Amino acid sequence: MKLNNLATNRIPWVNDNGTVISSRIRLARNISKVPFPCKASKNEQAGVFDAIVGVIPEIIELRNAQVLRLNDYDKIDRRLLMERHLVSYDLASKATGEPGLIFNSNEEVSVMVNEEDHYRLQSISQGLSIAHSWNMLSAIDDSLNEKLNFAFHERYGFLTSCPTNTGTGLRASCLLHLPALAMTESMEKLVSGLLKMNISVRGFYGEGSQPLGDIFQVSNAVSLGKSETELIENFEKIVETVIKYEQEAKNKISMGTLKARMEDRISRAYGILTHARAIDSEEAIGHLTKLKLTDDMGMNLSFNRDQLDQLVFIIQPGHLQEMENSILEETRRDIYRAEFIRKRLFN
Amino acid sequence: MKLNNLATNRIPWVNDNGTVISSRIRLARNISKVPFPCKASKNEQAGVFDAIVGVIPEIIELRNAQVLRLNDYDKIDRRLLMERHLVSYDLASKATGEPGLIFNSNEEVSVMVNEEDHYRLQSISQGLSIAHSWNMLSAIDDSLNEKLNFAFHERYGFLTSCPTNTGTGLRASCLLHLPALAMTESMEKLVSGLLKMNISVRGFYGEGSQPLGDIFQVSNAVSLGKSETELIENFEKIVETVIKYEQEAKNKISMGTLKARMEDRISRAYGILTHARAIDSEEAIGHLTKLKLTDDMGMNLSFNRDQLDQLVFIIQPGHLQEMENSILEETRRDIYRAEFIRKRLFN
Repeated sequence: MKLNNLATNRIPWVNDNGTVISSRIRLARNISKVPFPCKASKNEQAGVFDAIVGVIPEIIELRNAQVLRLNDYDKIDRRLLMERHLVSYDLASKATGEPGLIFNSNEEVSVMVNEEDHYRLQSISQGLSIAHSWNMLSAIDDSLNEKLNFAFHERYGFLTSCPTNTGTGLRASCLLHLPALAMTESMEKLVSGLLKMNISVRGFYGEGSQPLGDIFQVSNAVSLGKSETELIENFEKIVETVIKYEQEAKNKISMGTLKARMEDRISRAYGILTHARAIDSEEAIGHLTKLKLTDDMGMNLSFNRDQLDQLVFIIQPGHLQEMENSILEETRRDIYRAEFIRKRLFN
Repeated sequence: MKLNNLATNRIPWVNDNGTVISSRIRLARNISKVPFPCKASKNEQAGVFDAIVGVIPEIIELRNAQVLRLNDYDKIDRRLLMERHLVSYDLASKATGEPGLIFNSNEEVSVMVNEEDHYRLQSISQGLSIAHSWNMLSAIDDSLNEKLNFAFHERYGFLTSCPTNTGTGLRASCLLHLPALAMTESMEKLVSGLLKMNISVRGFYGEGSQPLGDIFQVSNAVSLGKSETELIENFEKIVETVIKYEQEAKNKISMGTLKARMEDRISRAYGILTHARAIDSEEAIGHLTKLKLTDDMGMNLSFNRDQLDQLVFIIQPGHLQEMENSILEETRRDIYRAEFIRKRLFN
């Protein structure tokens, strides 16, 4: 465990209110004529890592970036990085090769090295800020492109390990809190509607994960056949539509039986968070996100609002153990988490 | 709805502490040469009812008893009587014939008329009091036997509609709160052990029902081949053994991980009962019975102790609607129940 300083920093991309928690752009890039990570030897992967580390000093946005060789970091450190959305589950679990991470001090820009592709460039920021993220990442991509020989095909665009990323290599995603759509049982309909527009909806931890606390990740499923600007504009419009749907669902909930049911859920969440002596992450996330709705429902519950949105993410096992600076087995961790939430939220 | 006076009375058989909530003795009796209720016409059933009503003035213990022709009472009244353990589910649901109930003012002695047998005599009282109940009921049975011609066979004993009741026609049962055995996952073993000794374990509402709030009904499964006194002594010994097992399980829970888990459950129960805006019976019973353990666990939680044990039973739909004196559909009832518990327990 080496990253407890990082764990005590506020997660910068967590938006303190509104439906859109964060926006993210990522670009998949590979060095020409070097096998993709799934086929590359450890040496070849080390070469991929060294190549980008060598050019970092020349990229303004990454000049003071931290460089982590993930093989030097244990499970808890890796889990922490995942909870801060700096690495994917796949990179965090990598047991072979030379997985790496480069990220600047405000954690807005980062590069995963030797995940599915050689490089996954990422920019992540609060709220609905896709265009901002794109501008930032595009500049870095241009600089890197000048220095590293990215695999590019005139007809197909950027070549990537998985064909779904070929073309622009771009994925735009937003983390959305959609409690009203979830409560009115409209998510299934929304998900299938979005799928027809090539938008994927995923769970709390992204691909293959379940939703927790009504938090969903939406992202473009196709990166080919359109320009980056078109993809981004299209995606942003769709997210704005989802926000509108959520608002409409909230209006429904502000009346009648649904209102009573939502008030019950929020009030119970408060009762459990103030009284539980032990609580796991999933349950805690579910209750914490319910408290985010107190204002919408005009309820008067006393808790530290400035802590709430951060807590949704930092009560996860990586953060908890780094902050406590010790390995806590599950039962002990659940007890510690319950205390931690009480201290932060109700003191 | 005619029984709201009854609903506001404390339920007399609810023991305010200890493992044994209540003890009950019942005797199955039938009038000679009249078909059992399942075969008797409405007229014949009316005759059975009139026969006992006619002799009541001569039975000291029943002299001022109330007599209810259940056909004059609606679903909610019948449900209330069931919640007070004055009638069975079967009698409460009877849509044909002449179901009836006779009970004395303290509700200790009652007679169900035209249930499975013509008469089911019952005595019910707080805590472990089988012998007391038996003495009381035996006296009434003797008096009735002098006046009504009970079906009796020299070899088989009292004849009953179901052969499992033949012989003494006696069933002894206790309502037990066994949270520690339930938590240590010892119930299954206990149930199969008791079955070998001809003791049945049933749920909250008796035969065919699920346990709620770790409350179980244990009763003798056989009424034949032994005298009443032997049956009762044997049953009482077995209940005492179960009490001992529960105490041993409680000792286990007073340490280590199980202690932490139990404290968590109790504290959460408190949090939910103080904060829920709507709650159904099953959930409420589960949480209320958890609060019964605060003293055992040395926890300091503030609530009205004198209300707790009654609440476990009176938050059921029959009592709630009678007390409120109106029909409440389920959603409205759950909201009312949450308020009702808060008022009674935390004011």
